[in-house]
Amino acid sequence: MTLDPALILHHVAMHISLSSEERDFFISLLQYKSVNRRQFLLKEGEVCKHSSFVNQGLLRGYTIDTNGFEHVLNFAPPGWWIGDMASLITQKPGVLYVQALEDTKVIQLSKSNQEVLCTRVPKFERFFRILTENSLVSSYRRLTDTVSLTAEERYLNFCRKYPMLVQTLPQKQIASYLGITPEFLSKMKRSLLKKK
Amino acid sequence: MTLDPALILHHVAMHISLSSEERDFFISLLQYKSVNRRQFLLKEGEVCKHSSFVNQGLLRGYTIDTNGFEHVLNFAPPGWWIGDMASLITQKPGVLYVQALEDTKVIQLSKSNQEVLCTRVPKFERFFRILTENSLVSSYRRLTDTVSLTAEERYLNFCRKYPMLVQTLPQKQIASYLGITPEFLSKMKRSLLKKK
Repeated sequence: MTLDPALILHHVAMHISLSSEERDFFISLLQYKSVNRRQFLLKEGEVCKHSSFVNQGLLRGYTIDTNGFEHVLNFAPPGWWIGDMASLITQKPGVLYVQALEDTKVIQLSKSNQEVLCTRVPKFERFFRILTENSLVSSYRRLTDTVSLTAEERYLNFCRKYPMLVQTLPQKQIASYLGITPEFLSKMKRSLLKKK
Repeated sequence: MTLDPALILHHVAMHISLSSEERDFFISLLQYKSVNRRQFLLKEGEVCKHSSFVNQGLLRGYTIDTNGFEHVLNFAPPGWWIGDMASLITQKPGVLYVQALEDTKVIQLSKSNQEVLCTRVPKFERFFRILTENSLVSSYRRLTDTVSLTAEERYLNFCRKYPMLVQTLPQKQIASYLGITPEFLSKMKRSLLKKK
């Protein structure tokens, strides 16, 4: 499968400038993968070996607790990266499921190719440092939101973080991200509308 | 104030090897700070300008929610780093309070000195990449634990992560880290003892 690298090149260009040779070398290290709706890019217990950049579609990352309940940690629309970052960094089995909510196409860079890339084109060190920092900021905010915000405040932050998903995502997925039931989510949205 | 840099040098040496000139240059960029028990290294709304390495004592990082409840996110005994990582990276006001639980001495590296250090001694890029990755893994685990583990499972993970603190930390602090009341914590510990 070939896939248009325009979106990922645009994304890289936001952080570092590449010569045409460097760009071609980067593209030569990428792999393309289709994930049909409801299929998995990653499951709990697997070692995450790739960073995955969403070119089309939508994925969600979630965990399942010992009682079988799902907890959505993040969504990845086009232009976003997704994976089990802890597993990718440590190369130990992860805890995350990554599943397509729509038919999805991702561009993958393996951890080993990432190292090859950084050795040959050192400015990518900067790029991956920025990616890691952004992941850290995002994970940290998700954590502080989870422990200290009310469901209503978490919902407003969700709307700020994923404005493109507010109207289109199933309510069940949004509720799972917020850690509340879909019934409580509808009630809360009605109450927020009244406040406006 | 002068402070023995032995612990931080040992910590750095676990990841990168320095020449004596590089080591001296690194030490010249460090600042030393004492924080008395109950005093703050950082408060909500402040921009975090330093990475802080604990040389002696103990700190905790926590948030306060709109109802005034504290939620402990992490503890930092000697040899650990602490700060509001999201604020340090983005240089925007943070959400975290960092408070000393004992009389504490920290070694600080400012964000600007970190950049000077990386420019002059590029191998520190690797060191800070590892630090950022470790923070990410830790924040990610804390998040997945929080959303999907039971209080008992979270307590066992706390014991694994901070074995040196299990016996000495006030129960109130451990309970706040676990997101439960001190009463529920004692009940849970009694029940765990019976299971053994």
